[in-house]
Amino acid sequence: MDSLVERFRSGDRRALARLITRAENRSPGFAETLDAIYGSTGRGFRIGVTGPPGAGKSTIVDGLAAAFRAAGDSVAVLAIDPTSPFTGGALLGDRIRMRCTEDDSNIFVRSMATRGSLGGLARATVDAADLLDAFGYKQIMIETVGVGQAEHDVMTASDVVLVILYPGGGDSVQAMKAGLMEIADIFVVNKSDHPAADRLVDDIEQMLELRARRDAWRPPVVQCVATERRGIAELVLRIENYKSAREAAGDLAARRRERREAQVRRAIEEELALLLFEKSGFQDYITRELDRRRPPYAIAAEVVNLIKNSLKHAI
Amino acid sequence: MDSLVERFRSGDRRALARLITRAENRSPGFAETLDAIYGSTGRGFRIGVTGPPGAGKSTIVDGLAAAFRAAGDSVAVLAIDPTSPFTGGALLGDRIRMRCTEDDSNIFVRSMATRGSLGGLARATVDAADLLDAFGYKQIMIETVGVGQAEHDVMTASDVVLVILYPGGGDSVQAMKAGLMEIADIFVVNKSDHPAADRLVDDIEQMLELRARRDAWRPPVVQCVATERRGIAELVLRIENYKSAREAAGDLAARRRERREAQVRRAIEEELALLLFEKSGFQDYITRELDRRRPPYAIAAEVVNLIKNSLKHAI
Repeated sequence: MDSLVERFRSGDRRALARLITRAENRSPGFAETLDAIYGSTGRGFRIGVTGPPGAGKSTIVDGLAAAFRAAGDSVAVLAIDPTSPFTGGALLGDRIRMRCTEDDSNIFVRSMATRGSLGGLARATVDAADLLDAFGYKQIMIETVGVGQAEHDVMTASDVVLVILYPGGGDSVQAMKAGLMEIADIFVVNKSDHPAADRLVDDIEQMLELRARRDAWRPPVVQCVATERRGIAELVLRIENYKSAREAAGDLAARRRERREAQVRRAIEEELALLLFEKSGFQDYITRELDRRRPPYAIAAEVVNLIKNSLKHAI
Repeated sequence: MDSLVERFRSGDRRALARLITRAENRSPGFAETLDAIYGSTGRGFRIGVTGPPGAGKSTIVDGLAAAFRAAGDSVAVLAIDPTSPFTGGALLGDRIRMRCTEDDSNIFVRSMATRGSLGGLARATVDAADLLDAFGYKQIMIETVGVGQAEHDVMTASDVVLVILYPGGGDSVQAMKAGLMEIADIFVVNKSDHPAADRLVDDIEQMLELRARRDAWRPPVVQCVATERRGIAELVLRIENYKSAREAAGDLAARRRERREAQVRRAIEEELALLLFEKSGFQDYITRELDRRRPPYAIAAEVVNLIKNSLKHAI
């Protein structure tokens, strides 16, 4: 493991890929590795990209990647693929493989899928983004297909979130309102040469009028035709604006601190579940009490009380 | 709350609906209510129904509901709707409302959505099914849209799982293989009057040959044209076969015990997260250590160790 970290530090992309796999699988030693590279994180900027299927997320990501490379920045793309038993996780995979054929060592593309819990996906995404960041990638894009709740967890792993919408997609803003204002820092109306594009922009603007955010940021609406790379330059500008405005307000640092706190909490919960249900006697106790037809929440309350009392001296 | 439980016990459907809402919202006292009705659970049979969008899940559920009612059984339907910010949770809602207009007090239909975590949805589903079971519904169907990972959690809440597939849907069995064998107890090929139906049946049978299950059960493949109610009678028979075969083998009881154990574990995890991160000093400690740039997994390990040591006398 140590030699892998050394190779990672010397810029070996295969070592990077293997460390991401280990974080994904929670292989033994992954936590120590992430702690070892933690000091080198914090220089990359993490851009979350989400939206409904068909909105053109991949094309936007491709356009942004080209623009960042033209400006001299290295680029990493994490494509997060919430696995469904009905898709086999292939929603994004193929397109990703196609993009990988580009022979530019300053672009790194990686698809991540999981069959486990979504919580597991969120954890692995933060870890993979940390590895990319520590490796030296300046622009780290995290792309997710907007079909489940994965995007919410995954998006909290980003410094800025782009929500990609498109006109005529059958989804009106009214139908999409749930949660969008909470996650979108920048709205992108793709396929803006479509006759219904102005209407969609108006709808979003109206929604922005009606709903206040917790912070002072007002998400801009950027129009794009990503297939022709139209609007990408403005989008890059908006991302930079966002970054400097939020850095100045101290919001970016706050967001990153929240992300770290959530990461620590999840790591504690993960370890604690192992400790309580696999390594301690609680599992046997639960089984025994259930066999006696004792109701579930009463059993849970007793176990929690036991832990609480024994923690009294600890805290 | 107590009077609500009394009304529930006297057969008041509005009291049932309100108790489900309370379980969904984790309102104060919900755990005590669920424990109070726990002794009356275990008589209803829980049928999970899942499959890709467009497979005809709702039509199958409608057909089964009619067949169960004709046989004299009361029926409850829980439609689980994994909320996406891009759909606003309306994937199933509308069809459900339509079905609700049927004026049969022995059919109860309820749509459940959540904007929180999928774990929360799994918890609320088990609780809602318990309430329906204790209320006296004999056949409890849990329908979920197969677009995310929600179905996996939700399906573990069922006694039997029907996976609905359809020919010509663009999804070959090869593409769908991930996880299907683990969750399907009965395969349903809907729209079996389609020319490609035989091919799909063959594909499923072949997959069944290749993959062994942990248990001895071999999932049957039932062909249906649900819009014409063809195949529904056979499906009912297959469900009954499954139930008696698994009851005889002791597998059904084992599955239900596993479900209870998972429920208790989730309740403990939920309470423990509150205790550790909201009511104790650990959150402040985490923040402080992060401010010192101490790496996240080292902080987590220390907190877990502290808990572990203080638990030594408890276990």
